[in-house]
Amino acid sequence: MSEIKITLPDGSVREYPSGITAHQVAQSISEGLARNIIAAKVNGQVVETSRPITTDANLTLLKWEDKEGKNTFWHSSAHLLAEALEALYPGVKFGIGPAIDNGFYYDIDFGDHKFTGDDFAKLEAKMLELAKKESAYIRKEVSKAEAIQYFTEKGDQYKIELLQDLNDGEITFYEQGNFTDLCRGPHLPNTGFIKAVKILNLAGAYWRGDEKNKQLTRIYGITFPKKSELDAHMLMLEEAKKRDHRILGKDLEIFAFDDDVGPGLPLWLPKGAAIIELLEGFAKKTEKEAGYQRVKSPHIAKESMYIKSGHLPYYKESMFPPMELDGINYYLKAMNCPHHHKIFAATPKSYRDLPVRYAEYGTCYRYEQTGELFGLMRVRSLQMNDAHIYCTKAQFEAEFKAVNELYLKYFKVFGIDKYVMRFSKHDPKKLGQKYINAPELWLETETMVREVLVNSGIPFIEVEDEAAFYGPKIDIQIWSAIGREFTLATNQVDFAQADRFDLYFINEKSEKERPLILHRAPLSTHERFIGFLLEHYAGKFPLWLNPDQVSILPISEKYQEYSEKVLNVLKKSDIRALIDDRSEKTGKKIRDAELKRVPLMLILGEKEQTDNTVTVRKQGGEDLGSMTIEAFVEYVNAEIEKQLN
Amino acid sequence: MSEIKITLPDGSVREYPSGITAHQVAQSISEGLARNIIAAKVNGQVVETSRPITTDANLTLLKWEDKEGKNTFWHSSAHLLAEALEALYPGVKFGIGPAIDNGFYYDIDFGDHKFTGDDFAKLEAKMLELAKKESAYIRKEVSKAEAIQYFTEKGDQYKIELLQDLNDGEITFYEQGNFTDLCRGPHLPNTGFIKAVKILNLAGAYWRGDEKNKQLTRIYGITFPKKSELDAHMLMLEEAKKRDHRILGKDLEIFAFDDDVGPGLPLWLPKGAAIIELLEGFAKKTEKEAGYQRVKSPHIAKESMYIKSGHLPYYKESMFPPMELDGINYYLKAMNCPHHHKIFAATPKSYRDLPVRYAEYGTCYRYEQTGELFGLMRVRSLQMNDAHIYCTKAQFEAEFKAVNELYLKYFKVFGIDKYVMRFSKHDPKKLGQKYINAPELWLETETMVREVLVNSGIPFIEVEDEAAFYGPKIDIQIWSAIGREFTLATNQVDFAQADRFDLYFINEKSEKERPLILHRAPLSTHERFIGFLLEHYAGKFPLWLNPDQVSILPISEKYQEYSEKVLNVLKKSDIRALIDDRSEKTGKKIRDAELKRVPLMLILGEKEQTDNTVTVRKQGGEDLGSMTIEAFVEYVNAEIEKQLN
Repeated sequence: MSEIKITLPDGSVREYPSGITAHQVAQSISEGLARNIIAAKVNGQVVETSRPITTDANLTLLKWEDKEGKNTFWHSSAHLLAEALEALYPGVKFGIGPAIDNGFYYDIDFGDHKFTGDDFAKLEAKMLELAKKESAYIRKEVSKAEAIQYFTEKGDQYKIELLQDLNDGEITFYEQGNFTDLCRGPHLPNTGFIKAVKILNLAGAYWRGDEKNKQLTRIYGITFPKKSELDAHMLMLEEAKKRDHRILGKDLEIFAFDDDVGPGLPLWLPKGAAIIELLEGFAKKTEKEAGYQRVKSPHIAKESMYIKSGHLPYYKESMFPPMELDGINYYLKAMNCPHHHKIFAATPKSYRDLPVRYAEYGTCYRYEQTGELFGLMRVRSLQMNDAHIYCTKAQFEAEFKAVNELYLKYFKVFGIDKYVMRFSKHDPKKLGQKYINAPELWLETETMVREVLVNSGIPFIEVEDEAAFYGPKIDIQIWSAIGREFTLATNQVDFAQADRFDLYFINEKSEKERPLILHRAPLSTHERFIGFLLEHYAGKFPLWLNPDQVSILPISEKYQEYSEKVLNVLKKSDIRALIDDRSEKTGKKIRDAELKRVPLMLILGEKEQTDNTVTVRKQGGEDLGSMTIEAFVEYVNAEIEKQLN
Repeated sequence: MSEIKITLPDGSVREYPSGITAHQVAQSISEGLARNIIAAKVNGQVVETSRPITTDANLTLLKWEDKEGKNTFWHSSAHLLAEALEALYPGVKFGIGPAIDNGFYYDIDFGDHKFTGDDFAKLEAKMLELAKKESAYIRKEVSKAEAIQYFTEKGDQYKIELLQDLNDGEITFYEQGNFTDLCRGPHLPNTGFIKAVKILNLAGAYWRGDEKNKQLTRIYGITFPKKSELDAHMLMLEEAKKRDHRILGKDLEIFAFDDDVGPGLPLWLPKGAAIIELLEGFAKKTEKEAGYQRVKSPHIAKESMYIKSGHLPYYKESMFPPMELDGINYYLKAMNCPHHHKIFAATPKSYRDLPVRYAEYGTCYRYEQTGELFGLMRVRSLQMNDAHIYCTKAQFEAEFKAVNELYLKYFKVFGIDKYVMRFSKHDPKKLGQKYINAPELWLETETMVREVLVNSGIPFIEVEDEAAFYGPKIDIQIWSAIGREFTLATNQVDFAQADRFDLYFINEKSEKERPLILHRAPLSTHERFIGFLLEHYAGKFPLWLNPDQVSILPISEKYQEYSEKVLNVLKKSDIRALIDDRSEKTGKKIRDAELKRVPLMLILGEKEQTDNTVTVRKQGGEDLGSMTIEAFVEYVNAEIEKQLN
């Protein structure tokens, strides 16, 4: 029997007999590991752990923690759901049942039966009962004729319809327990992996999304390998509902949408604009200290710009349609890079000028389908914390490291404790097609990127074949305070655009040389980041970032004058404060300030006026007692200093 | 003979016999005045001073200082040019000869003769010789047949062509000395008013702008009522050439244009972006103190928005063409008002909330023909210092006054000593057509506007029939340091848009009430204002606004370390400084810092390092001697304080 070489993600190479499975490889490392392996990535393709490997291969053993691991887990759970439904409601017919971002769904034709929320518990119980049987998911290659015969006998017209679009030789069935499905896979080793089940909700879904077709019942569910994880998830969902950025954004008067402006185009109300100004002020200060220069560019450019950059025609469907002016097509910019490249090219550069770091909060416009728009998280206007760094190869490592450190600095300020960097690399087999054909540069930059990540101790995972066209990139995943995952931004290496835009600097030998380019946006877009922060902070923006830092609450009209005196002192100290001078009881004023998420309240009455002091109440109820106005200003400044450092 | 009533601009009414001329009215006031009257505005129409007035009329006596006065003066000068040319080159043929912003031109067919710059002096002399004859400009009504006969006999085919488009009864000739022209007028009383003449330059111009027609010679000239004014003008032109914002903008690396971005769309290089940031920082601070709130809106909106605002279809040709998305037309915004109205409408407002003042540096896009684009002064992208104030009628006067005071405050900071506000009013005869039909509101707001202007002691002129559709407005004219005139911005009253956008607040009687709206933009657009400032300051931006405030010049490499120490102290004090560490002589470094218009230079050598001091040289050469670094920081801060207050 021949030997094959298996390369693991850490670069180690092991020899095994040909035909070994991923499960066996895992066993050869440890039994504990083998028990937790959900699927395997073999040369970039995700397969069952039981699939024999017959050639040299890169192998990643996928666990629940991996994105593809979860995906497989939930896809298998959809099959389990179907098995349970068939057991409970014989004769139901099945549409499609994929994994989604958080769980899975299956579209079901219940015939005459009416399936409702009351049936969820019964379904969950049946799924758990079947899971306990530890039925293996068995893959079978079948011919098209066999497949059609099977579903014809079963009477499932939806699967037959799906089969019409498939060719002989590419059709597989997956079978577990008493259920067989038409499916590409891959799947879990067996149903026993699924230890916790929750049916979440129902929706109507037209077969194949066409409203001329029958409406099926879409059942959403989620499963976990541990009961405790399900509990945590349900708690997180409940908390997320309370922290829904769309509701908080309306209640706190942060942003609004308007029919005449258009979907996906938020209007920023004064408080939202104030948060934007504060975020930008912080970013500008931080980036200035890091040696960035600010630039400003228009929101449109000629078609020729985007042909040069390569965005046209490839990226066209994500761009707004053109405006024809004097016979020339102009496009709204979907990214700032080409404009920055033009600014780089506008004045001659020498090696002494490098690195050049251009930063701009440039608003870009991207087309998203109306149905895909979602609050601030999916929009059509994007105000990006964008910058491009032009450097020599010798400077690259330091620049890339500095960018990563900027990310970490920002994460700390915003209390983002959990994050992972996904390091996306090229696939050497696709050089010249999916990836620019510069093999040495790829290896060189990927090695540098990996070294920076390892040396910085930043948690990261390596992903094959997901780099940008022009270089390796890092996608940053962050988790909000309640444990929801967000994709924040990317940090990309680019060794193609300098060529396309004929960018160069004069090197020490007086020759023209192309710079390397880094694309980065640590604070993402205002839209996505403020949407994230609304959930992350539950609307309770920290003192430094809150549009209203202090609410002054005179306990009666008599203290209006003193309140104004306090207000003036605070204003002079650049503290954002307002007076609640309504003739309401103090308790009501406090409740309203809490609702507006104002971090600090000053309660002013006779004693405060006489002593020239303020009595300070923190958001949530903590009483800081009385202090002089000057002491309060010092307290505020010290708090902000703490939050920003 | 019947009596008529003549109302003068100050509101006084005088009675005269019907048939009196403007010249005679002027004489009845003073002979000195009569000598200076160039033309007259009778009920809004500009006519000769010799035209009999036969009905009651509003009369403005136009002098050289008035825009229409200059216009008439230069139009008559074009006729004088033609008379001189005919005397010098018999048989030349004439196209058109209008007044323009600064002077006039005439398009001439010289036949076989070649007219060059060498002939300018001869032409100027002939014009002055003819002017001295004080030939009256005589108006004659002629029939079309007579007119055609005259020019046929003269052999001037261009005038015959122009006559084709005119109707009998609307054709007039003007004759002075030996020259007769087809012309609508009006004209000067006589050629004697013209005391100084300068022929400026020549250009080719196709007859009627059509390149299929013959190319005529366009002669540009300018004339004045005093020789000293011509001298001052020529000096100003020479200085303006040195201060050309396009050349300074390139040399100082402020902005650039790029073919792939598009004409009229400036890219702001780091120094330009820094100036923008400083201007915005200043405006934001000033406006915050004045009670403005900042908002942020997208650069596009649906067609329905601009139909609601009334910009479509009337303003369509000044807007970029639409982008069709999901069957809906989207437009780049050409103004921020509709977006701000939507923000006003997004949350309920009570009388307690008013006045609401929304400010935004919103970038708008307007279509200007390629041929009309000019550096930063005429562009297609406009970053406006925009704001809209929503107030009650009772608040209007105070708000309008505050806006005017903001203008004056800004003028002071930028050293704009000469300015005039043009107060444009409605014409009651055009209510319901050109102007919204609300006669009381017009009178009420115009009275309020006039009172504010008079009470503030701001120089202003009143202009009939030039208001906006929705209310009276003020256009602000300013003059640069070298005496060139710029139109800066407008300050407009609006009592129509609130209705169109259904904007209201709940008044003290708990009823819905429409707010009045003020539109204002004291700092104009970044494009126009920075263009103006480049000329105004000759590129020497004052300390507070200069991207590079201090250039540190070590006299040799030995002082590099000390230079960096100084740099760090300055950076910590938020002073923008850089080190010129090239191995050049100090004299060369000083010359380069002067070229870059850096306001302060620090020359560092042995003595400074030993004493821990800096030797300070101001731009232009003034020596401030040696001082400690701390004293220098204090000096800089005090200077900035002075400049901003």
